[in-house]
Amino acid sequence: MDARIEAVTVTPLAFADPPLLNADGVHEPHVLRALVELHVETAEGRIVTGLGECTGHSWQLDYLELVASRVTGLSVFDRGRLRRTVYDTLSGEEVDAGRDAAWRRWADRPESIDSRGPAPLPATSFDMQRVFAALEVAMLDAQGHLLGVPVVDLLGGAVRDRVPYSAYLFYKWAEHPAFGDVPAIGDEWGAALDPAGIVEQARMLVDRHGFGSLKLKGGVFPVDDEIEAVRALRRAFPDLPLRLDPNAAWSVPTAVDAAHRLEGLLEYLEDPAPGVAGMAEVARATTLPLATNMIVTTPESVKPAIEARAIAILLGDHHYWDGLRGSVELAAVTRAAGWGLSMHSNSHLGISLAAMTAACAATAELGYAADTHLPWNAADDIVRDPIGFDGGTVQVSRTPGLGVALDRTAVDRLHAQYLSLHREHRNDGTYRQRVEPGFDTGLPRW
Amino acid sequence: MDARIEAVTVTPLAFADPPLLNADGVHEPHVLRALVELHVETAEGRIVTGLGECTGHSWQLDYLELVASRVTGLSVFDRGRLRRTVYDTLSGEEVDAGRDAAWRRWADRPESIDSRGPAPLPATSFDMQRVFAALEVAMLDAQGHLLGVPVVDLLGGAVRDRVPYSAYLFYKWAEHPAFGDVPAIGDEWGAALDPAGIVEQARMLVDRHGFGSLKLKGGVFPVDDEIEAVRALRRAFPDLPLRLDPNAAWSVPTAVDAAHRLEGLLEYLEDPAPGVAGMAEVARATTLPLATNMIVTTPESVKPAIEARAIAILLGDHHYWDGLRGSVELAAVTRAAGWGLSMHSNSHLGISLAAMTAACAATAELGYAADTHLPWNAADDIVRDPIGFDGGTVQVSRTPGLGVALDRTAVDRLHAQYLSLHREHRNDGTYRQRVEPGFDTGLPRW
Repeated sequence: MDARIEAVTVTPLAFADPPLLNADGVHEPHVLRALVELHVETAEGRIVTGLGECTGHSWQLDYLELVASRVTGLSVFDRGRLRRTVYDTLSGEEVDAGRDAAWRRWADRPESIDSRGPAPLPATSFDMQRVFAALEVAMLDAQGHLLGVPVVDLLGGAVRDRVPYSAYLFYKWAEHPAFGDVPAIGDEWGAALDPAGIVEQARMLVDRHGFGSLKLKGGVFPVDDEIEAVRALRRAFPDLPLRLDPNAAWSVPTAVDAAHRLEGLLEYLEDPAPGVAGMAEVARATTLPLATNMIVTTPESVKPAIEARAIAILLGDHHYWDGLRGSVELAAVTRAAGWGLSMHSNSHLGISLAAMTAACAATAELGYAADTHLPWNAADDIVRDPIGFDGGTVQVSRTPGLGVALDRTAVDRLHAQYLSLHREHRNDGTYRQRVEPGFDTGLPRW
Repeated sequence: MDARIEAVTVTPLAFADPPLLNADGVHEPHVLRALVELHVETAEGRIVTGLGECTGHSWQLDYLELVASRVTGLSVFDRGRLRRTVYDTLSGEEVDAGRDAAWRRWADRPESIDSRGPAPLPATSFDMQRVFAALEVAMLDAQGHLLGVPVVDLLGGAVRDRVPYSAYLFYKWAEHPAFGDVPAIGDEWGAALDPAGIVEQARMLVDRHGFGSLKLKGGVFPVDDEIEAVRALRRAFPDLPLRLDPNAAWSVPTAVDAAHRLEGLLEYLEDPAPGVAGMAEVARATTLPLATNMIVTTPESVKPAIEARAIAILLGDHHYWDGLRGSVELAAVTRAAGWGLSMHSNSHLGISLAAMTAACAATAELGYAADTHLPWNAADDIVRDPIGFDGGTVQVSRTPGLGVALDRTAVDRLHAQYLSLHREHRNDGTYRQRVEPGFDTGLPRW
């Protein structure tokens, strides 16, 4: 089948987000995101559009812009050549001469952002993965539509009909505070600033979506408080697996002490301490399995973690790791490394939920419920008939492609919201410092 | 698309093979091979057949037989479930009760072979991979036919339009010797038992097929003789990359000494010494990159080789490594391990050449011309319009599936040949001992 990429459209979006606390600070009132549409035409004139979703940070938009004009004309089946084009372009070696020509306005962005200098070249290996991944998801969606098969079948078929997700618990403020003319923004969830608040939040998420495992984002309060929250969750939900993720906010001695106290309570402890050496030191001191989405994020970072025996479980994420096929391939890496495999999430919308579900369904090695932020952001989704959680699981789509269709009205609304914000990137730390000027973003904190 | 596996047919074959020498002994007059046909029917009644090819050793036929009746009814897109079915069945845990029922005659085999006990359960991890791989290739061929796309596009698309192969040089006898009533079997290649003979053989293969790199199967003669053959090849073909593969026939001290003398002459030295520790010791002593298809053959064997820093290059092979998608996934493993990637071959026919070519075309990380035995066996091929080498390369097929069609007359002839042999497996050592009773199969030999 001859089907070529005719054009790539990238639409920056902003969607509402509650004030969720983490080691870096607190989530801003809006998440910057981008919709990627890959327009494909067959030799017979049939046109399909593949959908993808990625961060809307300025650097990602810059890199996508640089790449977009260079991938037109590729076959929609040429994932390998798409990858090479993205990586070659973002390595910057052959691009400098043509950069001005490629640097055209392809999606509305605020003047203040669009007029500043572009993101630097070469891009990091991590960023190259992320740019490619956004296009790859859209490519596979388009392939599925053209061939009449669900994306999961292009990934090797579903080994499970439903994919389990975990409830992602956050310490949170009751509302985004008022600044000048901007009023405070409350939400339906309320505050969660102590063990009782976390248990209540977990109860709401479990009641609403049926989640069968719980993950607490830590690194926010002193270790004793967070361990107490884990213990409160254990008492309230005696049968549910628990995880804690302090995002490397603990020093190695603090992490070693905490790990000992958490043994038997957690299915895994995620990124307790910074760096490969730090994680390895904690791993040597505890029987608790350590997981990461911080020290292993690129192919180059796998071997040092194997050699240091730093982790037991890797969290994949199709937004990096070279997209959906890359995520499935990652299972071959974790199998070889002797690691378990779980799944990371950042704030996202329904296209990414469908994509994560396809990747998780196709990955036999996935041994844990996947993370998802979606329940925090579902009100602003851009897909029609959003996918729901039932018993904490999402049904694997059997319709062609990813099985999602755009709600254009919602896209327009979230794009207008993006334009109104004049924001370039995410910064949980400076946002928290606007409220608490003394907040120190330095890590490890304890 | 709803398309189910209706039946699996396995046809044992035997094809002619010259007396090629290696560390184990010498190739027997016929290679045992098997044709795998996966019969698939869609909900609309469309029928397609996918083709695969594997060894025809008795254990592989036994395991395929055990698995065959258990995979019917699976969707042809359910690679993950096919894999699980094969691995679960061959682990033997749930099978014992049903074994007799599954143990039916599904392909003609000589009475003497068919009546002996079946291969043992659980199968090894290595054998599970091989059984699954044979079915997986056929599954992908069927998918391609159903969807109207070449297999390479199901693997992520071609990153190269032609795949380079290497000339596979062997020390060889002039003929298979006569035994009793069985006359000697000569061939067009003649003897190659010294450096001049190897150079002449290389010249024939390069003239005929245009190969751009040369691999010598070693471990046959004393090290000095084989190094002299490499030097003669270097003089005769100053621009072609050279490899030597003694198949672990050397002791570590012998390998260290040989490696020093081969530095600058070879692009890599393959399996000079046995075991992970032995290879690691050689690797520490030389700047020559070491490659293997012996110490890393399963997911479990990757980590020990990384930790020991035993190799620089891994040879993949879609006949194990979980088939075609597994071979592409292997590139993610070698990338993470920091290894280069090359491609191994055993004696094979045209289906496997098409499959290898698809896998190599889809694998950007492949850094070397792939091995192939096909020039030694092309006269007995079972595909119509066999694929040829041009400039040492094979063009990547753009027709649906693997792009090969069976020559049924040839299949029937090779199956009859199989039945006439009454052979169960390959044994290069005992065959050589029939000619040289004193031949010692023990390794390392030097």
